[in-house]
Amino acid sequence: MTRILKIGGSILTDKSRELVARPEEISRIAHEISTQPDDLVLVHGAGSFGHIPARKYCLSQEFSREGLRVTHNSVARLCELVVEALGQAGVESLPVHPLSCLQLHSGRIERFLLDPIKEMLKNGIIPVLHGDVAMDLARGAAIVSGDQLVTYLATALQAEVVAVGSNVDGVLVSGRPLPSISRKNLPEFENAIGGSAGVDVTGGMRGKLLELLDLADLGIESVIFNAGIEGNIARALNGETLGTRIRRSK
Amino acid sequence: MTRILKIGGSILTDKSRELVARPEEISRIAHEISTQPDDLVLVHGAGSFGHIPARKYCLSQEFSREGLRVTHNSVARLCELVVEALGQAGVESLPVHPLSCLQLHSGRIERFLLDPIKEMLKNGIIPVLHGDVAMDLARGAAIVSGDQLVTYLATALQAEVVAVGSNVDGVLVSGRPLPSISRKNLPEFENAIGGSAGVDVTGGMRGKLLELLDLADLGIESVIFNAGIEGNIARALNGETLGTRIRRSK
Repeated sequence: MTRILKIGGSILTDKSRELVARPEEISRIAHEISTQPDDLVLVHGAGSFGHIPARKYCLSQEFSREGLRVTHNSVARLCELVVEALGQAGVESLPVHPLSCLQLHSGRIERFLLDPIKEMLKNGIIPVLHGDVAMDLARGAAIVSGDQLVTYLATALQAEVVAVGSNVDGVLVSGRPLPSISRKNLPEFENAIGGSAGVDVTGGMRGKLLELLDLADLGIESVIFNAGIEGNIARALNGETLGTRIRRSK
Repeated sequence: MTRILKIGGSILTDKSRELVARPEEISRIAHEISTQPDDLVLVHGAGSFGHIPARKYCLSQEFSREGLRVTHNSVARLCELVVEALGQAGVESLPVHPLSCLQLHSGRIERFLLDPIKEMLKNGIIPVLHGDVAMDLARGAAIVSGDQLVTYLATALQAEVVAVGSNVDGVLVSGRPLPSISRKNLPEFENAIGGSAGVDVTGGMRGKLLELLDLADLGIESVIFNAGIEGNIARALNGETLGTRIRRSK
């Protein structure tokens, strides 16, 4: 069994300030993960480590070699903070950088070498991936969001649990989380679903939801939950009812 | 045309002290590279950033999750120093971490996603790889030397120039560099060729030479030269006579 846990960049970093991490939150998350079996793949968002330099260099529209370097080095540093925090919590993990191991085409993952990730899982090591820049056959380079990574990995690894931790209680409509959503009932809520607090070049809650609906279409349901609340990671990974469940349309 | 430049860890780091880089040497090398066309792949050795933690955790013999994490994070940091120095010299490069993009079998590269490297080259970005730890189908994990990366990449990318910079003048016999060596005349010198100064878990000059003789067997000749001497990088990349040429046996 493989379980995929995403932790949003809004939890790990101060989304309004470049390169400002939240070390206590990173450490708390690491300790919560340490209570879990090691069948996990962890994907984290880039938060201010990625979105701010990506916006500064207009990476969504333009090809900038310097922008790629600065943005990648910044998100790789956040990844190292996460891996180190896990180590201090007694969990061994290794970074897997999308820039090194996958190729995009028009912003979508086209090739991805999964062997190192599978081998880590076999050996009790949690692979840690993150929102990143990556080379793109059509555009030179593009941004690959943590949410796209979740969808791709969940499909490729046939994940049994997909838990997407955000800094809100789920997909909010009028301030309250929907218990569940599917592609069929998306239209009635669509206008009410907003973007992300702070800077987000990858589409915020709307972008996340569209990725996870694609995943649900393939038969893999997921949950969007508030990872800012202690104990929720274990609850989400154990399949308890919380947040918003992204369901396959009947 | 693709050219491959390897810079030994002994140039970039103080091989006797863990995590001690040589920033002036890294900066000098970056400036020398900045005078070259951008058809380069750069591979650097791990130096004390890799060999000292790898020895501490006995990574050549044992599987250690913590050892993998500590060693990888350390060599990744050296790679970041190199990429940053190149940026300051006006050359855009991006790190490509072997741990993320390849898989070993019994210590040898079995799978390697080359697409990001090719795409970087197409877009005028120098891919920077390094000696690293990597997942291994037979052993869980193993060390992949910068020299093995050079051989693999030279073959896969059909490199026209392969220049391997060391901190000595070439393959030394009685203190003097042999002008050339091939598999056929290896036996007469073999006992005279030593290991590496400082700690080296990947076999020093002997390991390097065996890799490059394999490459010569495939028809790709290379040169081992002293990258500690200013100007030698350009000379080696331009095919001037210096150091020791690793020739194909006639």
